Amino acid sequence: MDERQARAWLATAVDEARAGLAEGGIPIGAALYAPDGTLLGRGHNRRVQDDDPSAHAETAAFRAAGRQRSYRGTTMVTTLSPCWYCSGLVRQFGISRVVIGEAATFHGGHDWLAGHGVEIVLLQDPECVAMMRAFVKDHPLLWKEDIGD
Amino acid sequence: MDERQARAWLATAVDEARAGLAEGGIPIGAALYAPDGTLLGRGHNRRVQDDDPSAHAETAAFRAAGRQRSYRGTTMVTTLSPCWYCSGLVRQFGISRVVIGEAATFHGGHDWLAGHGVEIVLLQDPECVAMMRAFVKDHPLLWKEDIGD
Repeated sequence: MDERQARAWLATAVDEARAGLAEGGIPIGAALYAPDGTLLGRGHNRRVQDDDPSAHAETAAFRAAGRQRSYRGTTMVTTLSPCWYCSGLVRQFGISRVVIGEAATFHGGHDWLAGHGVEIVLLQDPECVAMMRAFVKDHPLLWKEDIGD
Repeated sequence: MDERQARAWLATAVDEARAGLAEGGIPIGAALYAPDGTLLGRGHNRRVQDDDPSAHAETAAFRAAGRQRSYRGTTMVTTLSPCWYCSGLVRQFGISRVVIGEAATFHGGHDWLAGHGVEIVLLQDPECVAMMRAFVKDHPLLWKEDIGD
């Protein structure tokens, strides 16, 4: 896909991550886009805010998009490489593409997704890296809790 | 693990599946048990009831259990073989064991989990099979929607 388009969509996920951070949460954001570029849903990690371990950024965006008959051609945009839980979501529902802000601070299941035909666009965005790096440094236990480490 | 124990735990998941069916939903139930046998959380698929595509039985039970520091030694009990989304949840959070009511009507990611060290107890329970078979026959599109087919 066009990198300018990918970066524009990433900005939505980054806004979500920043909103999560401002709420005292884990700064990971995501958004789900339709094949025609319509924003279907956006969200951020809500482990701290809602005491909800199931609310990862990608699952929050997926939930916010509501019920869809098909995910063919959709794109999940996320500030961070998707963990196995969120990678499993992408594979199960046939989401076609994942745009990833960075995979330097955490390497999830995106190679596995690529091997199963999902288009992966890895941006290595410096702001995403800096936001996660600072968070993990300041809240190592919370971060480990969020990835079951 | 002891099969009698597994079947006793499965009964909790079956109760959840029946509750979902009674609400007009997809009859899949799950429960998360602590290493000492304490019930941490239980839930059922809520796609129809809440218009929530992210509420699979296993994720509902996981959510109901609240934040946990570790999932080591825990058991996820589910009436149906876990889809990739729910299998990813099990792998990411290090849930140690999955007790499965049946894998005859749907074969999800439990072999993958076994290959990654998760203990799989597959019961092939006739009631679980009958409940899903009847549901899929009566609501084929809803079932396909739930697994992104």
